[in-house]
Amino acid sequence: MQVSARNSLKATVKKVVEGAVNTEVTLEIAPGVEVISIITKSSAEKLQLTEGKQAYAIIKSSDVMVAID
Amino acid sequence: MQVSARNSLKATVKKVVEGAVNTEVTLEIAPGVEVISIITKSSAEKLQLTEGKQAYAIIKSSDVMVAID
Amino acid sequence: MQVSARNSLKATVKKVVEGAVNTEVTLEIAPGVEVISIITKSSAEKLQLTEGKQAYAIIKSSDVMVAID
Amino acid sequence: MQVSARNSLKATVKKVVEGAVNTEVTLEIAPGVEVISIITKSSAEKLQLTEGKQAYAIIKSSDVMVAID
Amino acid sequence: MQVSARNSLKATVKKVVEGAVNTEVTLEIAPGVEVISIITKSSAEKLQLTEGKQAYAIIKSSDVMVAID
Amino acid sequence: MQVSARNSLKATVKKVVEGAVNTEVTLEIAPGVEVISIITKSSAEKLQLTEGKQAYAIIKSSDVMVAID
Repeated sequence: MQVSARNSLKATVKKVVEGAVNTEVTLEIAPGVEVISIITKSSAEKLQLTEGKQAYAIIKSSDVMVAID
Repeated sequence: MQVSARNSLKATVKKVVEGAVNTEVTLEIAPGVEVISIITKSSAEKLQLTEGKQAYAIIKSSDVMVAID
Repeated sequence: MQVSARNSLKATVKKVVEGAVNTEVTLEIAPGVEVISIITKSSAEKLQLTEGKQAYAIIKSSDVMVAID
Repeated sequence: MQVSARNSLKATVKKVVEGAVNTEVTLEIAPGVEVISIITKSSAEKLQLTEGKQAYAIIKSSDVMVAID
Repeated sequence: MQVSARNSLKATVKKVVEGAVNTEVTLEIAPGVEVISIITKSSAEKLQLTEGKQAYAIIKSSDVMVAID
Repeated sequence: MQVSARNSLKATVKKVVEGAVNTEVTLEIAPGVEVISIITKSSAEKLQLTEGKQAYAIIKSSDVMVAID
């Protein structure tokens, strides 16, 4: 499947923390650069996310804000 | 200013393409890893984004989806 | 690819209207039930969306609001 | 009230699952076509959502992604 | 219609600027406090938004970030 | 830090309710006008939000819908 979201970053799952409803997934998208994702627990289970698994961080370009110091 | 969004990735502005209303900003967050952001033209002007400028990609954790092959 | 978004609705592309930056895609998800999607023009081109093509409407569950009369 | 969101789909509430903070609502928008919505528990209570109730799934067009196989 | 979004702020339309695809609406939610909304042009036309009209700014609680100095 | 989001409203923190994963923050943006924000608990802790603290409600213009009666 190919999705219209502009950003599809190759990642390695570093950590998976399950909550009651949501799961927090830490994705390493480059050495030392991590992105945190919160998805529903049922989605995390469907994708069988575990540490070390190859995955993608999918982010719509309109959801990326820019900041400066 | 410190924002509640979980992901605040150091970045370098690589490209700024102005549209009529929106501006597309390409941010390099690691060597060879780019994230595309679409913000309003007025925001891009306020932040004076130009190639080479240091910036941050700010992304809420609930806006990061996870995909697998 | 399998995505964490909870809603992945089978659809047929009914209409594709290109703007300067964005493209408006009308997806039929059931007979007579249509969903309108706005994606970037570059994404629409990458996916080669044309009328009659089979596709999916992908929607995060937290992006679906509920209303009553 | 009339809202600016482009998609307002007639639906029947099929299931309501309450969590500690959020409530998961399953909406049938056509025979056999369901959309899952996650809203806050307090919103679900305010709307008095129960199985069989007529409702609407409200979705902004920019929150609908498109995917292809 | 009653919507699940937590924030529904009474407002007066102060300015309506039409673009090719989107319309920028400035809403005054308290004396001197304005919120800018960008909606599709077709939605703005459907709602017949004009200066001085009473309206509401509808915002999901998960779309409100918090920042501190 | 300066963020690309169009709306940055001065606010006073009125209430902070911690859940297991998320924290609900009530922000007063004008006398009697409140906005509810839901952020992750870890973000709320990082920002050390407490009643009476000065803060900002940060909202992207595309996340503000408009409604009329």
